[in-house]
Amino acid sequence: MSKKVVIVGGVAGGASVAARVRRLDEKAEIVMFEKGPYVSFSNCCLPFHISGDVENSQDLVLMNPDQFDKQYNIDARVYNEVVAINREAKSVTVKNIQTGETYEEAYDILFLSPGARALRPLSIPGIMSPHVFVMKTVPDVENLMTYIEKEGVKDTVVVGGGYIGLEVAENLKYVGYNVTLVEAQDQVMATLDYDMVQMVNREMLEKGLNLVLNDSVKEIKEDRVILASGKEIPAQAVVMAIGVSPENELAKQAGLEVAEQTGAIKVNHHYLTNDPYIYAVGDAIETTCFFTGKKTQLTLAGPAQRQARAAADHAYGRTYRNTGVIGSSSVKIFDLNAANTGFNERQCQAHGIDYDFAYIIPKDKVGLMPDSENLFFKLIFAVPSGQILGAQAVGKGNVDKRIDVVATAIMMNANLEDLKELELTYSPHFSTAKDVVNHAALVALNILNGDFKKVPVTKVRELVENNEMIIDAREENEYATSHIKGAVNIPLSQFRDRLSEIPKDRPVYIHCRSSQRSYNMVRALGQLGYDHVYNMDGSFLGVSEYEYFNDVRLDRDPIVTDYNFN
Amino acid sequence: MSKKVVIVGGVAGGASVAARVRRLDEKAEIVMFEKGPYVSFSNCCLPFHISGDVENSQDLVLMNPDQFDKQYNIDARVYNEVVAINREAKSVTVKNIQTGETYEEAYDILFLSPGARALRPLSIPGIMSPHVFVMKTVPDVENLMTYIEKEGVKDTVVVGGGYIGLEVAENLKYVGYNVTLVEAQDQVMATLDYDMVQMVNREMLEKGLNLVLNDSVKEIKEDRVILASGKEIPAQAVVMAIGVSPENELAKQAGLEVAEQTGAIKVNHHYLTNDPYIYAVGDAIETTCFFTGKKTQLTLAGPAQRQARAAADHAYGRTYRNTGVIGSSSVKIFDLNAANTGFNERQCQAHGIDYDFAYIIPKDKVGLMPDSENLFFKLIFAVPSGQILGAQAVGKGNVDKRIDVVATAIMMNANLEDLKELELTYSPHFSTAKDVVNHAALVALNILNGDFKKVPVTKVRELVENNEMIIDAREENEYATSHIKGAVNIPLSQFRDRLSEIPKDRPVYIHCRSSQRSYNMVRALGQLGYDHVYNMDGSFLGVSEYEYFNDVRLDRDPIVTDYNFN
Repeated sequence: MSKKVVIVGGVAGGASVAARVRRLDEKAEIVMFEKGPYVSFSNCCLPFHISGDVENSQDLVLMNPDQFDKQYNIDARVYNEVVAINREAKSVTVKNIQTGETYEEAYDILFLSPGARALRPLSIPGIMSPHVFVMKTVPDVENLMTYIEKEGVKDTVVVGGGYIGLEVAENLKYVGYNVTLVEAQDQVMATLDYDMVQMVNREMLEKGLNLVLNDSVKEIKEDRVILASGKEIPAQAVVMAIGVSPENELAKQAGLEVAEQTGAIKVNHHYLTNDPYIYAVGDAIETTCFFTGKKTQLTLAGPAQRQARAAADHAYGRTYRNTGVIGSSSVKIFDLNAANTGFNERQCQAHGIDYDFAYIIPKDKVGLMPDSENLFFKLIFAVPSGQILGAQAVGKGNVDKRIDVVATAIMMNANLEDLKELELTYSPHFSTAKDVVNHAALVALNILNGDFKKVPVTKVRELVENNEMIIDAREENEYATSHIKGAVNIPLSQFRDRLSEIPKDRPVYIHCRSSQRSYNMVRALGQLGYDHVYNMDGSFLGVSEYEYFNDVRLDRDPIVTDYNFN
Repeated sequence: MSKKVVIVGGVAGGASVAARVRRLDEKAEIVMFEKGPYVSFSNCCLPFHISGDVENSQDLVLMNPDQFDKQYNIDARVYNEVVAINREAKSVTVKNIQTGETYEEAYDILFLSPGARALRPLSIPGIMSPHVFVMKTVPDVENLMTYIEKEGVKDTVVVGGGYIGLEVAENLKYVGYNVTLVEAQDQVMATLDYDMVQMVNREMLEKGLNLVLNDSVKEIKEDRVILASGKEIPAQAVVMAIGVSPENELAKQAGLEVAEQTGAIKVNHHYLTNDPYIYAVGDAIETTCFFTGKKTQLTLAGPAQRQARAAADHAYGRTYRNTGVIGSSSVKIFDLNAANTGFNERQCQAHGIDYDFAYIIPKDKVGLMPDSENLFFKLIFAVPSGQILGAQAVGKGNVDKRIDVVATAIMMNANLEDLKELELTYSPHFSTAKDVVNHAALVALNILNGDFKKVPVTKVRELVENNEMIIDAREENEYATSHIKGAVNIPLSQFRDRLSEIPKDRPVYIHCRSSQRSYNMVRALGQLGYDHVYNMDGSFLGVSEYEYFNDVRLDRDPIVTDYNFN
């Protein structure tokens, strides 16, 4: 007897369940319900329709019901909303939105993939105005574009500096709108640490995007947004991208367990809810953290697809090794790429994990190659084990490659010794013989082993303000072009003859351009009886990148005579 | 008392030893000998000076003796050739090439990094002519460029289809020379399998490079090269890039052990030779294969740098975990990128390893993105363990990323289950939610678990010639544009109503464009009692790519009505 499989919700979770069930069971009867007009679309690509990178909004639709029927023998019903689950009867109550008619549909196995809803805090006056949009579905982006073109919108405000907010802002800017991005925290992209996000800030600043931090929306008027600070931003269209909340009403009504704090649907190892005939996958569920084993939430397409497959497999007797999630993501912001995996510093601190990190700024490929670029890379590891906890990379080149390598290493429980030995591909157009990841692991091992001490880029302003002893190990012509205020220029090529100028009785902080030369000086001094020598992480390049955005934003005195980003 | 460290040879091995020793020991006396004019240069970048990608040949020089002296307090002596090692006396005999003078230099520890020499078989008449060049040093590329510009060379022959040969050929072609690449084997790039190299062949063909396979050089005349086949290729300049041989004379003369067959210097776990005061690193030494534990050779810059560091560390009491080498490399050929790691099919066969492979052709990023490209990907795994043995990738996009992920997985002893669960970064500009690597692992697991059967792209011509039953699962309009000769068109969207047309009593081979649709049909038929159904690896796209080059080269009848590369 063939199974009847019912799926609530399409997109990454539901559609993947449907396709997998069909491959496992040619005879299953499969019905997929979607309350909206599209059962399978690329929600990650929605922002790219704004700029025309995805020219036609219908291209965002990956599969229509007719294709599901003919190619997979799957009954995909759009505009059909599941309004109740009748667990005793093993059926769902469905409302046909177009006819208003309500009907029952029986199931042997039910898969829930309801997704998450974009937050719209009703406490903000004006939040439901016709010029306020979210970005979750194809109609959302169509409505936004129709509106701003028809109404002749010039000024836009995007609220929320997560991936969606950034991509919406970037794509609006690409096609010529004035864009202000408002973020309540002191930084966009919570996946990156504060130091790593400053390069992203600089890119947005240079591309003419108005970035407002530490401020939130108090009221939305017809022609402007009023912020908590009292600041008023002209805006004839507003996009809310402050986050999502699990669509859990159906599950709650049916008595399925949801997490108290987050509202996410609780599932077991195989994505089964507390009802043995109901699975749940995707943005609406609770997942497990790879590092801590604690419950967490992650609204990403990759994990949703894996959950879908695992749930379908389990329904057909195949077990699954649930490793938990580490959190890997990437984003392009104008000409800059950023990616991260695992824990950042904040997450380590929140979980009480003892950690340290290496921060390096090598070239992404051999420096001789015409298109080589600086790559900002941060590797976070556990102390004292050296276990890899996370990494962040920002640059114009291939940052996602390095992060994918670290993600792989993390999931294979690698430590720094493993990472330094990785034999990665090399040719001058793609990388360097000692790739960024190897290089970071070597620096990290030196830190872990106590071979040298370092001061992070976040502390340099304080050093300058306290008149600490800073040595600039670059050549004289480099120092002349631009340097840290108060720094003494003792080039690596001269220091052995100028040791008398370097005090032994107070801390000395050494930098060069990107820390290669300063590191060699630090190691040498350490062996010459200098006990208080620190390498400055990121050196002059790192300091310039770290300080620039806030110097401009807060109109404060730079700690360098001139920025240098090369 | 400070140590005296002597290093023979610079570049990746020797210069890395020198820098590492300095960091470990500020007081060591370090002398580095180099018989040529440059102690540290980027040999991997030499070919890029031909096209002007590296405009000035002096830019290839990374560090000069003055910089070594001033920055690292290292005594780097160019034009000084070490002609003998006096092991008893712990000294080397050095000949100053410029003055002819010979002198002794004592050492406490000696590091050999002599590298490898480009092969020039003296059995080929004309091999030592002034218009025949190799590509190992800065003077080599300078001599070539001076010659071809001064002599008004139009036609060039590059002998050898390894990385250097390909890059020299590509760069000569870029600046307008006629280029013939002659390779004795039936394919270039021995790191790739025959199926994966065909895309590289097509790229070279389309860029106007004349590729001659299965032929070797019999004689080099002033104006032409005569091949073993009798073919004559006009050439006023010839570059020999048929491989290298370890520079082992010094080691042999000093009674250090070298491998009988390869001549490579034998070293232990810490790169120590059979003399406890002499280390050897780089292209001249024997290394250990990660997979088999057997001795092997690998002339790559990355491993050389790691060996250098490990050897220096060991001289200072730090031990090393020697994992052996897996062999990872990458190359850009015109607009195409290729990369590989671990074992290919030939290596598995040579070592008697039971293996199978998945071959897929997904997009390298979300298909909606304007610059998405086909990515040809082959994943090789052990049977029955599912251990990852190797991978090869070819495409216009980010192929090295996927190979680096697999390289990491290999070195962490990953199997297919690990690979399918990897949580890699995703955003539409960089990848797909189920990345290429995850996708390949899923297909491979299905193969390993016997969920479906497949026929490789290498066998399709035979199927066509034997009038086997081939089903084209694409839509009718796709079939009408181009198809495999003799294939029956039964679209995935129709097959459930046309089962009567599919025989159960003979093998059926199914393909679509890239195997997504055919795979679903194969899975369905398998459950409907069809026991002899095979998915065609790579499908129409794979067949077009596999057949095209040899169809043109051998002027043979295509097995498709028209090629389709999209």
